[in-house]
Amino acid sequence: MRLRNVKNKEIIFAGSTYLVKDPQNNKGKWQKVFGNNNPIYLEIGMGKGKFLIDNAIKYPNINFIGIDRLDSVIAKALKKIPPDCTNLRVLILNGDEVDSVFDHEIDRIYLNFSDPWPKERHKKRRLVSNNFLNKYDAVFKNNKIIHMKTDNARLFEYALESFSQYGYILREVHLNLHNSDINNIITTEYEEKFIKENNPIYQCIVEKTEDLT
Amino acid sequence: MRLRNVKNKEIIFAGSTYLVKDPQNNKGKWQKVFGNNNPIYLEIGMGKGKFLIDNAIKYPNINFIGIDRLDSVIAKALKKIPPDCTNLRVLILNGDEVDSVFDHEIDRIYLNFSDPWPKERHKKRRLVSNNFLNKYDAVFKNNKIIHMKTDNARLFEYALESFSQYGYILREVHLNLHNSDINNIITTEYEEKFIKENNPIYQCIVEKTEDLT
Repeated sequence: MRLRNVKNKEIIFAGSTYLVKDPQNNKGKWQKVFGNNNPIYLEIGMGKGKFLIDNAIKYPNINFIGIDRLDSVIAKALKKIPPDCTNLRVLILNGDEVDSVFDHEIDRIYLNFSDPWPKERHKKRRLVSNNFLNKYDAVFKNNKIIHMKTDNARLFEYALESFSQYGYILREVHLNLHNSDINNIITTEYEEKFIKENNPIYQCIVEKTEDLT
Repeated sequence: MRLRNVKNKEIIFAGSTYLVKDPQNNKGKWQKVFGNNNPIYLEIGMGKGKFLIDNAIKYPNINFIGIDRLDSVIAKALKKIPPDCTNLRVLILNGDEVDSVFDHEIDRIYLNFSDPWPKERHKKRRLVSNNFLNKYDAVFKNNKIIHMKTDNARLFEYALESFSQYGYILREVHLNLHNSDINNIITTEYEEKFIKENNPIYQCIVEKTEDLT
């Protein structure tokens, strides 16, 4: 099973025009990859890709890049991308490597249902820790805008503190996104499951307009 | 009933050493009122006073001032204050009048279970709106520290956005204070009722260290 799975993945990867195999080579040149000057939005931890693909279809004038460290979920995502989705690219990449692949060229970052790393000693691994916010500074073009969603209350508390203490301003905070006045929400696979279970989804949109460092 | 009630209140007010009847006269001179240089913490909307009184007893080296616009709840609070609570004063005052009574002499503000004013057109009346944050600037001595608690999710969302956009940094955020790692929480009357009903209490501690204006 394991071998067959890898074989399948490799066939999918080899045949995909959406998977960028050598992302480091495009550092600073992602506009060229897309062949236009449209904004580039990055989803870190794209999972099976529903959120990313739905966005790419809905917003053809935005370029979307999704990354995930797990090649198995990337393989599943690639199978779902419709033809001619020219504003979409996918990378097999760890979140902590974003600054090796992007150089001041990303307009927005999405963090959806990231691993909460609940233990205190693992908090630096959370995608909203200082450690990562520092890397994102090198990735963002001008204004730094992060859209974050989670079902994990403790991660959300930590995220709000971390963003604020790093210099981000909270533009929007929702403690129950699907019971708010926001409509037409593009969801992730995980989020769909949570909505059915009637659990609240926390969301924030944060922005850092000036680099105070 | 109404007249008797007023009569009782007036007797209580006349006999109380804790009620400051002419607070405007003490503007800029509250240290003299207390006869020491201890920090002064202000609770806006003290209600029946449990939180304020419990704090004053527990922290004798902090001076506490509570205000409320309703003289009936102030009367109830005054009846509960034990003798020799020299670090406590109470004022009948509207929240929007704080800057007529205090001049850069308050070290911390508490906002507990404030009126959520849920309608959009009333949002300026919320004690965490820009309108009020601006008044608090004139009240605070050096660092501006606000401790806020509420059971109202919408008010809490608004508060986080408002604090952040005004320049406050979120030091602590709790989405379920009584299910957190915080112990020895001093509660209000209202909060006790909510805990029994198992509703979450939201809390944040925010700080503004530099005046960017």
